[in-house]
Amino acid sequence: MNTFGTLFRVTTWGESHGPAVGCVVDGCPSNMGISVEEVQRELDKRRPGQSDVTTQRREDDAVEILSGVFEGKTTGSPISMLVRNRDADSSKYREFINKPRPGHADLAWRMKFGHVDWRGGGRASARETVGRVAAAAVAKKLLSRFDVQAIAYARQIGDIRSEETFDTPVKGLTDLIDSNSVKALDAEAAHGMEAAIKEAARQGDSLGGIVECMVFGAPAGLGEPVFGKMSSELAAAVMSIPAAKGVEFGAGFQAASMTGSQDNDEYVFEGGKVRTRTNNAGGIQGGITNGMPIVLRVAFKPTASIRKRQRTVDLKTGKPAYIAIEGRHDPCVVPRAVPVVEAMVSLVLADQMMVSGIIPRRL
Amino acid sequence: MNTFGTLFRVTTWGESHGPAVGCVVDGCPSNMGISVEEVQRELDKRRPGQSDVTTQRREDDAVEILSGVFEGKTTGSPISMLVRNRDADSSKYREFINKPRPGHADLAWRMKFGHVDWRGGGRASARETVGRVAAAAVAKKLLSRFDVQAIAYARQIGDIRSEETFDTPVKGLTDLIDSNSVKALDAEAAHGMEAAIKEAARQGDSLGGIVECMVFGAPAGLGEPVFGKMSSELAAAVMSIPAAKGVEFGAGFQAASMTGSQDNDEYVFEGGKVRTRTNNAGGIQGGITNGMPIVLRVAFKPTASIRKRQRTVDLKTGKPAYIAIEGRHDPCVVPRAVPVVEAMVSLVLADQMMVSGIIPRRL
Amino acid sequence: MNTFGTLFRVTTWGESHGPAVGCVVDGCPSNMGISVEEVQRELDKRRPGQSDVTTQRREDDAVEILSGVFEGKTTGSPISMLVRNRDADSSKYREFINKPRPGHADLAWRMKFGHVDWRGGGRASARETVGRVAAAAVAKKLLSRFDVQAIAYARQIGDIRSEETFDTPVKGLTDLIDSNSVKALDAEAAHGMEAAIKEAARQGDSLGGIVECMVFGAPAGLGEPVFGKMSSELAAAVMSIPAAKGVEFGAGFQAASMTGSQDNDEYVFEGGKVRTRTNNAGGIQGGITNGMPIVLRVAFKPTASIRKRQRTVDLKTGKPAYIAIEGRHDPCVVPRAVPVVEAMVSLVLADQMMVSGIIPRRL
Amino acid sequence: MNTFGTLFRVTTWGESHGPAVGCVVDGCPSNMGISVEEVQRELDKRRPGQSDVTTQRREDDAVEILSGVFEGKTTGSPISMLVRNRDADSSKYREFINKPRPGHADLAWRMKFGHVDWRGGGRASARETVGRVAAAAVAKKLLSRFDVQAIAYARQIGDIRSEETFDTPVKGLTDLIDSNSVKALDAEAAHGMEAAIKEAARQGDSLGGIVECMVFGAPAGLGEPVFGKMSSELAAAVMSIPAAKGVEFGAGFQAASMTGSQDNDEYVFEGGKVRTRTNNAGGIQGGITNGMPIVLRVAFKPTASIRKRQRTVDLKTGKPAYIAIEGRHDPCVVPRAVPVVEAMVSLVLADQMMVSGIIPRRL
Repeated sequence: MNTFGTLFRVTTWGESHGPAVGCVVDGCPSNMGISVEEVQRELDKRRPGQSDVTTQRREDDAVEILSGVFEGKTTGSPISMLVRNRDADSSKYREFINKPRPGHADLAWRMKFGHVDWRGGGRASARETVGRVAAAAVAKKLLSRFDVQAIAYARQIGDIRSEETFDTPVKGLTDLIDSNSVKALDAEAAHGMEAAIKEAARQGDSLGGIVECMVFGAPAGLGEPVFGKMSSELAAAVMSIPAAKGVEFGAGFQAASMTGSQDNDEYVFEGGKVRTRTNNAGGIQGGITNGMPIVLRVAFKPTASIRKRQRTVDLKTGKPAYIAIEGRHDPCVVPRAVPVVEAMVSLVLADQMMVSGIIPRRL
Repeated sequence: MNTFGTLFRVTTWGESHGPAVGCVVDGCPSNMGISVEEVQRELDKRRPGQSDVTTQRREDDAVEILSGVFEGKTTGSPISMLVRNRDADSSKYREFINKPRPGHADLAWRMKFGHVDWRGGGRASARETVGRVAAAAVAKKLLSRFDVQAIAYARQIGDIRSEETFDTPVKGLTDLIDSNSVKALDAEAAHGMEAAIKEAARQGDSLGGIVECMVFGAPAGLGEPVFGKMSSELAAAVMSIPAAKGVEFGAGFQAASMTGSQDNDEYVFEGGKVRTRTNNAGGIQGGITNGMPIVLRVAFKPTASIRKRQRTVDLKTGKPAYIAIEGRHDPCVVPRAVPVVEAMVSLVLADQMMVSGIIPRRL
Repeated sequence: MNTFGTLFRVTTWGESHGPAVGCVVDGCPSNMGISVEEVQRELDKRRPGQSDVTTQRREDDAVEILSGVFEGKTTGSPISMLVRNRDADSSKYREFINKPRPGHADLAWRMKFGHVDWRGGGRASARETVGRVAAAAVAKKLLSRFDVQAIAYARQIGDIRSEETFDTPVKGLTDLIDSNSVKALDAEAAHGMEAAIKEAARQGDSLGGIVECMVFGAPAGLGEPVFGKMSSELAAAVMSIPAAKGVEFGAGFQAASMTGSQDNDEYVFEGGKVRTRTNNAGGIQGGITNGMPIVLRVAFKPTASIRKRQRTVDLKTGKPAYIAIEGRHDPCVVPRAVPVVEAMVSLVLADQMMVSGIIPRRL
Repeated sequence: MNTFGTLFRVTTWGESHGPAVGCVVDGCPSNMGISVEEVQRELDKRRPGQSDVTTQRREDDAVEILSGVFEGKTTGSPISMLVRNRDADSSKYREFINKPRPGHADLAWRMKFGHVDWRGGGRASARETVGRVAAAAVAKKLLSRFDVQAIAYARQIGDIRSEETFDTPVKGLTDLIDSNSVKALDAEAAHGMEAAIKEAARQGDSLGGIVECMVFGAPAGLGEPVFGKMSSELAAAVMSIPAAKGVEFGAGFQAASMTGSQDNDEYVFEGGKVRTRTNNAGGIQGGITNGMPIVLRVAFKPTASIRKRQRTVDLKTGKPAYIAIEGRHDPCVVPRAVPVVEAMVSLVLADQMMVSGIIPRRL
């Protein structure tokens, strides 16, 4: 299942070391201005090799729009986008064909499919997310027309946790996040996070973390009871990101230890509108958005590829084996997962706003 | 969207205080033995009024099978099941029509639909899960034919957390869980949980908690890359349960603070098979099951309906208001959420085993 | 697959001689007035035993609405409807368990499912269409709010063909169709059709025919390129009706023998609007509605159950066998297929108008 | 909706005069051998400019496989395929922007989307079918592994109708069909068809026709009751082909004039198997395949683009106008529709054989 969405649908394809990666966006309203530069800008945010806390693989990730856009505007036809892979080096992966790498998808995919493209993780590689980010560039443009914006940032890396500040005005937020290499909101925490990543890398180890995503401007009434709840759609979306191991909304897992009187968000009038005083619900009640900011957090496990020696098995000899994974890997997935979380959340929003009839089929 | 699944599909319908609730199960393989008693047994597990820690609403929840089963076996046609509502008392809800109850879906649904059945929470009520549990009775029967079983229990209620023991043999587990009113695995913790719920109820307040679900016997290779990952399917499924605010797999949110060398599950041979020494992945790698037990946890917020006075607004007068919710509510959703988590996980498994071609269309 | 539609979704269930038949309508906009009487009126149109050209099975087909409607209006929640089977007589069918009836679905279903409900044709019976007609009553109500109406009639029965008159004003049409037992538009042809059916019945034989359906008021722009063309959606819908063997739009199969200059519908201005002078396209061009009336025809084969002796096989003995099917069967499916064609076309229209964003989620 | 299928899914994209056309095949079983040459061979069958009865546009239609195939075998990941457009000449189309061409999709699409790519028909062009044929090359390879083959041919062109001969052995059939420029089965009829096309072209006019498709080797039990009947799936598939105006199965529209005793296919034993003596059902009973050859016919209207003067409107001036369409158009769509019908039928078969659990996820 490489297609996502009901009315605004995205299909991604491509392997890490194949000729190219890409996507097809189907169902985007017609008559919307979009340029190749706008897509490129989003792709540049997740591009590897941009700082010393990410992989050193060099890809220019230049996108080509092959269909669905004419005279600078969408036509309602599927938008096919293509990014060629340039800097793939498969040599390092050959030794792992019969020695599954702990924490990786190698063995599970192999048990499922029998035959897999093992080069650079194949389709299980984070490189697959290029297609999602390109597709989300279209979704973001669409959302911006309706004043909706999803903003993600690194909330935690290793043990370094930054303070929650989701009341900051939207404009300032993105500047803050883009001002550091780990995509944190809090400059001080960013320093600690960078240091922690470098230290882990030095030890041949890796770190995980938490990405928080806030959505500003989402109208009330999004989400479909019972099985298409906004929380279900968003959870499925972010759990499809490589290395994601958990997701929570608003107070999330903390709500489990709260009493009803602590957790319930009381209603107040504010500027003629009903709002909640707190936002423990994370903007979603009974699966439906209530007009407050949507807040969700995604837990990412540490990068599976590490230089440290690990125990595994040799599937050929049937004996234990040890491996140490050299290569150009992100010592922490979080900084590059930030734009991907933002992308997946944006795709869900565009789709749900169409399903709800708020975004029309033609602008 | 009240339908769930790809090949094994469930549609639920019904409101808390309407004439009935029910479901249609479509796509169940033909030729499988199933009796009304087997479905009733599962419904009895989530039935209200069974102990003093759950709501005192009295429903016999007697199920009627209206189609799809002939001479004790499934025919491959949709299985329609019906449960009449008997003990509905709508009188208490009238006062809340214009005073949205904090923490409830009232207002969000109203903003979406304009016209809602407010009686007893209508379709947003936990009573809607009757249909899911009836449908899952069919799924569980099917899974049992393939030696797959999902077992859920109360891992945490309020501040009381029980120890994880997912290596206990399957048979013992269900007996332990059924031996206490809160559906905990750990008898000692169960006492504390019961006491905590009673104390919260006494104070006119409520508690949340965490339900853990383990799946034993699930074959390797379930789940579809990229967007149909097992983690995405399961997350969407459990996040559709009323009051769920988060979900995690294996080490989950804890993995965010671990290093790669701590989190990676090393491979070993055991009885001729490749297994992992630890199960931080929770049985899912790269979205695909690896043959280890699937482990997931769902965070539930405290019951929204509490007797304590809460601030809200009067939508008619446009002024602040206060409410105190009397009525027969569960002081903690967790004990009755346990069978629902088990149900949703079972539905996903049955569906994914069919999608993977492991369960045939005809037994 | 017993569910139909994308946003306006219908699930039907039930067997001919089971306890009941019914449907669940999911996705109908909220806030729409609908009464049990409105649904009953549509069901009464397809009810058996109404004239001497249809089956003499007696069913009152009283419908019960179990959910989704509150205070006379839809709530946006699934509408579950139930009709009990009263006059089922399964005795006649036992002899055919091992002697498949020519022209029937018996054997094909049995090869697929291994175990089928053979009583009265089970789920393959035309009685299954009760659920469709009940669901379509809701769709028709919705369409009427947008001045869209589908009208079907018997265009041909056996060799008797009536003249096409799709320019008659809508109001008169339904009166004409309801004024005869075969649901023809042309009173003279109706006499011939009735006589032909009675003669076929007298000979222990049966007749087929053609149902034409016209849609008035459908807006331009319905249908999704490429695979969701209006013609694809409608074709799939009507081909799901028991005994349907073909479908055509506008000039249809006749267009195969025409030249481009004969078939092309030239454009003219009429009352400030662009229309086509002819309607060989049947209101659909490139899969998209063009604002002209939609015109389609469905070919129905003769009823498979006939009293005449037919050759078959005895699956138990492995020897040839002969059967003569007694029982209460329609000697011609067409009169009762007319409301079912109308129902399926209405369901497609309601769904596509929602997918196109023309019908909102909330009235 | 540019995606087709449930488990074997195809997404096509691309406009006639855009940079490229292509497709993504998702869900094809892993471990199946497939080469770029096998796909190219199928594309060559629908390639334009091959004889004097088709358009003179010159395209080499060289396909590139971008993903999903590794070491000559499928991996279970999406197969992305790309064909660059080379010989597009948009100059001829500019004059029709405001003068909709009778019989074309121009105006309907414009009413739907507001902004369309008008060059060469854009996405409504038959060039879009390149993606379908490439995708079907994969489906055909898969079907061949299970001894299933769909064979289409020109049954009728203009008034020239060829005799039905669907009992001829499969091998001979394709040779006969490929031996003439109109893809007829009957060499004599082929001569008449060619002559008719040339005569229509000489007159600046065009012809329609009927394509018949037979499927040999399809197992019994394919198709899903009630809404996923094999006849519904196939009808939707072929009605999505540009210019298709009708579809029928087995006796089809002729069955409307037959009696039950004429139309019913009697059962006989043949070689230990139950078969039907006749095949009026076209291999489908009650929506389910019965093991007999599937037979369907698709009616195509004449090519809309003709040199003859036609009446239309000028949308800019609001006045009547006349046009004569010069350019490189097929004077009859049938010869090039033959491989497309075969493609769509093959896609349905591959998908349904997976849905039925007959084709596994991994070869």
